[in-house]
Amino acid sequence: MTDQPTLAQLAEQLGAELRLAPGADAEQPVSGLNTLEDANSGQVSFLASANYRRFLASTRASGVLIGAELADECPVSALVVDNPYHAFARATAIFDTTPQPAPGIHPAATVDPSAEIDASASIAAGAVIEASVRIGAGVHIGANCVVGEGSEIGAGTRLKPGAIVYHGCSIGRDCTIHSQAVIGADGFGFAPYQRQWTKIHQLGGVEIGDDVEIGACSCIDRGALGNTVIGRGVKIDNQVQIAHNVQIGDYSAMAACSAVAGSAVIGKHCTLAGGVGVVGHVTVADGSHITARTLVTKSIESAGSYSSGTPFSDSRSWRRNAVRYGQLDQMARRLKELEKQLEGLAHRDGTED
Amino acid sequence: MTDQPTLAQLAEQLGAELRLAPGADAEQPVSGLNTLEDANSGQVSFLASANYRRFLASTRASGVLIGAELADECPVSALVVDNPYHAFARATAIFDTTPQPAPGIHPAATVDPSAEIDASASIAAGAVIEASVRIGAGVHIGANCVVGEGSEIGAGTRLKPGAIVYHGCSIGRDCTIHSQAVIGADGFGFAPYQRQWTKIHQLGGVEIGDDVEIGACSCIDRGALGNTVIGRGVKIDNQVQIAHNVQIGDYSAMAACSAVAGSAVIGKHCTLAGGVGVVGHVTVADGSHITARTLVTKSIESAGSYSSGTPFSDSRSWRRNAVRYGQLDQMARRLKELEKQLEGLAHRDGTED
Amino acid sequence: MTDQPTLAQLAEQLGAELRLAPGADAEQPVSGLNTLEDANSGQVSFLASANYRRFLASTRASGVLIGAELADECPVSALVVDNPYHAFARATAIFDTTPQPAPGIHPAATVDPSAEIDASASIAAGAVIEASVRIGAGVHIGANCVVGEGSEIGAGTRLKPGAIVYHGCSIGRDCTIHSQAVIGADGFGFAPYQRQWTKIHQLGGVEIGDDVEIGACSCIDRGALGNTVIGRGVKIDNQVQIAHNVQIGDYSAMAACSAVAGSAVIGKHCTLAGGVGVVGHVTVADGSHITARTLVTKSIESAGSYSSGTPFSDSRSWRRNAVRYGQLDQMARRLKELEKQLEGLAHRDGTED
Repeated sequence: MTDQPTLAQLAEQLGAELRLAPGADAEQPVSGLNTLEDANSGQVSFLASANYRRFLASTRASGVLIGAELADECPVSALVVDNPYHAFARATAIFDTTPQPAPGIHPAATVDPSAEIDASASIAAGAVIEASVRIGAGVHIGANCVVGEGSEIGAGTRLKPGAIVYHGCSIGRDCTIHSQAVIGADGFGFAPYQRQWTKIHQLGGVEIGDDVEIGACSCIDRGALGNTVIGRGVKIDNQVQIAHNVQIGDYSAMAACSAVAGSAVIGKHCTLAGGVGVVGHVTVADGSHITARTLVTKSIESAGSYSSGTPFSDSRSWRRNAVRYGQLDQMARRLKELEKQLEGLAHRDGTED
Repeated sequence: MTDQPTLAQLAEQLGAELRLAPGADAEQPVSGLNTLEDANSGQVSFLASANYRRFLASTRASGVLIGAELADECPVSALVVDNPYHAFARATAIFDTTPQPAPGIHPAATVDPSAEIDASASIAAGAVIEASVRIGAGVHIGANCVVGEGSEIGAGTRLKPGAIVYHGCSIGRDCTIHSQAVIGADGFGFAPYQRQWTKIHQLGGVEIGDDVEIGACSCIDRGALGNTVIGRGVKIDNQVQIAHNVQIGDYSAMAACSAVAGSAVIGKHCTLAGGVGVVGHVTVADGSHITARTLVTKSIESAGSYSSGTPFSDSRSWRRNAVRYGQLDQMARRLKELEKQLEGLAHRDGTED
Repeated sequence: MTDQPTLAQLAEQLGAELRLAPGADAEQPVSGLNTLEDANSGQVSFLASANYRRFLASTRASGVLIGAELADECPVSALVVDNPYHAFARATAIFDTTPQPAPGIHPAATVDPSAEIDASASIAAGAVIEASVRIGAGVHIGANCVVGEGSEIGAGTRLKPGAIVYHGCSIGRDCTIHSQAVIGADGFGFAPYQRQWTKIHQLGGVEIGDDVEIGACSCIDRGALGNTVIGRGVKIDNQVQIAHNVQIGDYSAMAACSAVAGSAVIGKHCTLAGGVGVVGHVTVADGSHITARTLVTKSIESAGSYSSGTPFSDSRSWRRNAVRYGQLDQMARRLKELEKQLEGLAHRDGTED
């Protein structure tokens, strides 16, 4: 964010039609964004869901990003747009205060002479860039990041402090890799031999498309043979684990603490809620949605919503019910037996008629 | 730990009444702490739970932190206290050998000239302190930590090696942030648009109270609008994920691998066991206890213990029962049908009487 | 990998009998390894599971590691071995291209003068080695790693970039510790006192045996009193959490996102699939196998396979069944009541006969 835009400038940048409230001033500077409920004068808000409509009448915002169908209800200046939530997202870029480092290599960074660093890239203090690395235009490598031998970082990509990329990995353009993320650690491969484990060295790499975001402490392992592949526009939250040779299709999104086991293939435009697990070697169809904490144990053949797990309750009720879980098969058999007996009785009864 | 305290000194420091065993010496140096079972001569132990009372008679400890009601059973010198477990906790501080770095900025640290570092703070090798950071008295910033632009670290707080704080975050006094923890990474916010994702830049920060501990590889995301807030005295274990705009009430504790989704509000004095999940936008009442691996899918209105999940068993029985889970609704309907039929039969029978 | 071995050399290194296909050349250089399906000319493949036998006839590989019983089916040169999967694992070591750093201390590393570093060890840029550390022969300490005061790293062990070892820990020989792993952070110990928490300083350390692998972002906490112990040959995947005073027996393996709570004892030769949880203070028998996402809530007395959880399905069916979970105990009681009633009816019926 540089200077504060005026209401009129903000509307123009977002392609919004500005409908000024009586007495409002199109030249009022906009200091920031906030919710309808919490916004103060000088801030702009947005109405993107019917759930929040009840806060509209009393908002103190100086402007509201709003659809045409509700603009008449807006008690303050309306910035009328087709898609208020998307307009809000675009507005956040205008008000973002994330520090933007100047180009250049910090004297406390360590860069191998064989690395090719674009002159517009910024390499922060403590970063280590190993041999034969290639770093594109406008890239930010944060403090204490490490980029391993021969890896490539595409133009416009940002590695936040402490992110680590092993050797031989490729990251596309305009990606964001958050702190402590690990790209290209060894997949977990060991052959059992004489009751011990022989390591299967992981000979593949990691290939990440353009416009990907990877959260803090997330891990994308390198492939055993061939690459682990993260498609274009994929969004991965914190503490997500992607095992060797997984493929994630374009524009899929995975919330925090999800995990995908080896060689699983997640389709395009899938959404995995928090804590989802996907076992190895299965396929998840394009457009699938998996609800929180579900464990996907076999392939999903067609788009839809999928779930597993049990509802939560007070521990006492839960304990009573949980103990029955271990009796379920027996209960099912007893039920069937009862049905048979009852049919016998009914039949006998029937013959008496 | 400096020199070894004597039994008498230790008792005094802990406010314990020393009841010397026959032949014992109040001036005996205490070399350390151990369990009743494993303690050797020179060590002090504690009896804090009835489960361990059976080890009392045969302990080789030179002293035992013990309640008055059991002190007579103690075969060795007793250090009588009101709360033996709390006294033990206080004693661990006396015997702690965690290295305490000397004040000053290591030559291999990188500190922006605009940062304000208290003279009594210690900044280790490889640490990077960005512009406008403020670091209080007695703070330890461990090796290879990064503190982002404009963040504040309160007096007495310790960042262990590799911990990372993004820009614009505030950490209170006397906190401990363990290695690889990430404070202030972007919350996971994207607006869907034309089957792609538009980033919602995360404009808020993180605000952490005094006396908070955050475990290794745990993540506290910055807020989207407004701050993510961790209350005073909160204890967070390893690999915990706290999403944007979550609020954790004072003195709550969360064991490893727990995760709280966006905008959820956890009350004060709550305890979350390991692997608990809380979905977004719900509220958990003050004083709630959630058992291991529970997924909290709606608000908890009153204090109590809450659970979800199924018991474990051998895989064969489990498989038989698990398959019935997918038939539960059908079983419930068949059960109801049986009840109806049986009532019919009983009724008919009844009319025959 | 240095130069490409010939087919004959590879066979010799792996102790395989080379059965050349008609027209094949034992002197052909081998460029790498691949699956039967994806291998090209110049690559060697392997047949280790009946599932892949269907790809054998059409493989384009120049050689296949194969058991004697199927060698006759091999359309290309066969490298006949007793255990093709193990031979493949050994072959990956030959083709591994992981960069091997030269011995010596990088000028951008920070090494305390009191540390003992073997001359053949390699300490990368940004690494910080604290006082009294001992580093054995051939050790690699990656960029930006930290080894805390007094810790020991055995010969041949590799710490990948950013791995962190706290003070007073001991790591055996020939281990691999991946990036962002944390060895020796404080166990999660607090005594409740007046509705607050008093820290129990963690006075023990961590002791890791030889030939152990620990994945990225995994945490092994130090013991409260005494050490946390990881046995010889243990393999731990990414994002695994091992709490204080846990013991993991020799040659056990744990897949990603597993977590073991305080003082639990996992036997030897156990395998934990992804996302397994083990509660505190329980024991798991040698040779146990735990399936994905199981929560082990009590001790396992004998080897076997153990599971918990519910199957996944489409969300609609799941919701119908899940709601019944909360009625299970009531259903069990109704079932019993029906059985009683039916017995009554049958009995009455019986007396009529």
